[in-house]
Amino acid sequence: MTKAVEWLGDRVRLLDQTRLPQEESYLELKSYREVAAVIREMRVRGAPAIGVTAAYGLALGVQEMKARTKEEFLEKLSSVSEALASTRPTARNLFWALEQMQKVAQEGENVDQIKQKLVTTAERIHQETEETDLRIGEHGAKLVPEEATILTHCNAGALATAGYGTALGVIKTAHRQGKNVLVYADETRPLLQGARLTAWELVQEGIPVTLITDGVTGYLLSRGKIDCIIVGADRIAANGDVANKIGTYNLAVLAKENEVPFYVAAPRSTIDFSLKSGKEIPIEERSPEEVSHIQGVRVAPEEVSVFNPAFDITPHQYVTAIITEKGVVKEPYVEGLRRLL
Amino acid sequence: MTKAVEWLGDRVRLLDQTRLPQEESYLELKSYREVAAVIREMRVRGAPAIGVTAAYGLALGVQEMKARTKEEFLEKLSSVSEALASTRPTARNLFWALEQMQKVAQEGENVDQIKQKLVTTAERIHQETEETDLRIGEHGAKLVPEEATILTHCNAGALATAGYGTALGVIKTAHRQGKNVLVYADETRPLLQGARLTAWELVQEGIPVTLITDGVTGYLLSRGKIDCIIVGADRIAANGDVANKIGTYNLAVLAKENEVPFYVAAPRSTIDFSLKSGKEIPIEERSPEEVSHIQGVRVAPEEVSVFNPAFDITPHQYVTAIITEKGVVKEPYVEGLRRLL
Repeated sequence: MTKAVEWLGDRVRLLDQTRLPQEESYLELKSYREVAAVIREMRVRGAPAIGVTAAYGLALGVQEMKARTKEEFLEKLSSVSEALASTRPTARNLFWALEQMQKVAQEGENVDQIKQKLVTTAERIHQETEETDLRIGEHGAKLVPEEATILTHCNAGALATAGYGTALGVIKTAHRQGKNVLVYADETRPLLQGARLTAWELVQEGIPVTLITDGVTGYLLSRGKIDCIIVGADRIAANGDVANKIGTYNLAVLAKENEVPFYVAAPRSTIDFSLKSGKEIPIEERSPEEVSHIQGVRVAPEEVSVFNPAFDITPHQYVTAIITEKGVVKEPYVEGLRRLL
Repeated sequence: MTKAVEWLGDRVRLLDQTRLPQEESYLELKSYREVAAVIREMRVRGAPAIGVTAAYGLALGVQEMKARTKEEFLEKLSSVSEALASTRPTARNLFWALEQMQKVAQEGENVDQIKQKLVTTAERIHQETEETDLRIGEHGAKLVPEEATILTHCNAGALATAGYGTALGVIKTAHRQGKNVLVYADETRPLLQGARLTAWELVQEGIPVTLITDGVTGYLLSRGKIDCIIVGADRIAANGDVANKIGTYNLAVLAKENEVPFYVAAPRSTIDFSLKSGKEIPIEERSPEEVSHIQGVRVAPEEVSVFNPAFDITPHQYVTAIITEKGVVKEPYVEGLRRLL
């Protein structure tokens, strides 16, 4: 299985996802600053994988830290955590993982013990992500018909979670159960995670996959070619509104219009119970060059301005079900999600 | 003004749209085979511009033709016309222009006179396209508010019509009338006509334009940022169903869901009264490489299959109005469009 992120005892080994599918190359990260940089540059991406990587980053960041008291240590740790948290604003799992780590640190007895505990906590977060993905896969596969053509967006696979995958975890589980699964992967501009990562991951798994541009989705839905849509999530508000890769809302509206189920697969750690609705979720805007240039080549005139939000919000009324490791939640989401706590 | 296509007396001068915006380079075409090739390779594209170019191609193709009788001449002409017609299957204006030309040939007196008449007919088709665009612009501009943020898809500008533009003709007219117009151009994968051509054309006209990926459209619509959508068309069925660049249907559904007007601007020659509905419109599928490669660089794994339809069908119930040179048509379209005849 693909290892997007791996802890090597004193450093993090990371598959550089910006180089896929041309090249399977790995980076070895020895400082939290390097970890922050790879998250910002999207060499690792996907909400759960960002969370795992940031946890390892914090574990790395404290190892060389010198402090006479626990308080001094916690203060320094907090600034490292902030540096990691400031890399990307939308994915809930990033903040969730750092909160888990900080809680462990606060409960620790002394600096040396905390340093050790942070390593084991990061490893536990990573391991739990894998187990969570498997459970999401099992719950979700029940929603997949025996013969199913499934549309997915961006990459919510092993590369996105550092585990087994959320949306792709459901697809892989259904496939492993012997269901006849075909996948349409939309390319997901601007960074082409669908073309580069999802297509690559499914080819590796031996699951039939057809690549389309983002504009072909409505064509397929309107012709009855899609049985369901499954996507991941970067943050879910308490009412079930979903922040996910830009273009997800388009799919959800097209699914509703064509009466096709629209499923979101995500671990509980993606849910932000502090936010009443998706309107409160901050949306990251990324650099114009991601749109105006492709593979380093300018495709738009120099004078044109660019608007490049990385995520959008899908209101809960478009979501048929949210698939978590604790089971499948449907409307009313406020109650259903609260029961997961 | 940009001259996408120009007749130079004995050859066609054509702006190579595959090289824009990096390079403004022109081709000189001296045979109908060269004309057929540039249409197939999309060096010229956009339904009306394809029609104009094909008409010039037929005029070129007959000049060196030897025939003892008018019948023999018409037979040879017919095979040249078929070669030009077989370049692309969806755009109505291609077939319409060739039909106009053949009708003129049939009505001609002798071979020499017909040869001359086909040149003047191609020039007339070109000139009428320009006049038609101006009238579409005037009718359409009445639908544009004084302050308007307009979303457009692909390129329905001067480059697409060899005139002034249809959708962009409306926008240019509104701008010229002093309306405060802002444009969002989606990039329109796979061939990026939005990024490469629409952005370029609007920058040249001094109209403020912001480039987005195709997935950002729903985000903007759901946040109330778009006052109307205006697109062109490649073929319109008798009931008002619209074939246009892949991704158009997505926009139409998103517009309806967000109660934003969705306008189609196209000349009468785009309407195919022989087709009852959009279901009968043939949809061109193009090469997988348009999706799997960008700027010559492979972005998807080699083993992945690709589905690459060039157009989709927007059912008439999503179309707020069709803007033609004869005026604006709304539901019921069957009657409204028939009145244009």
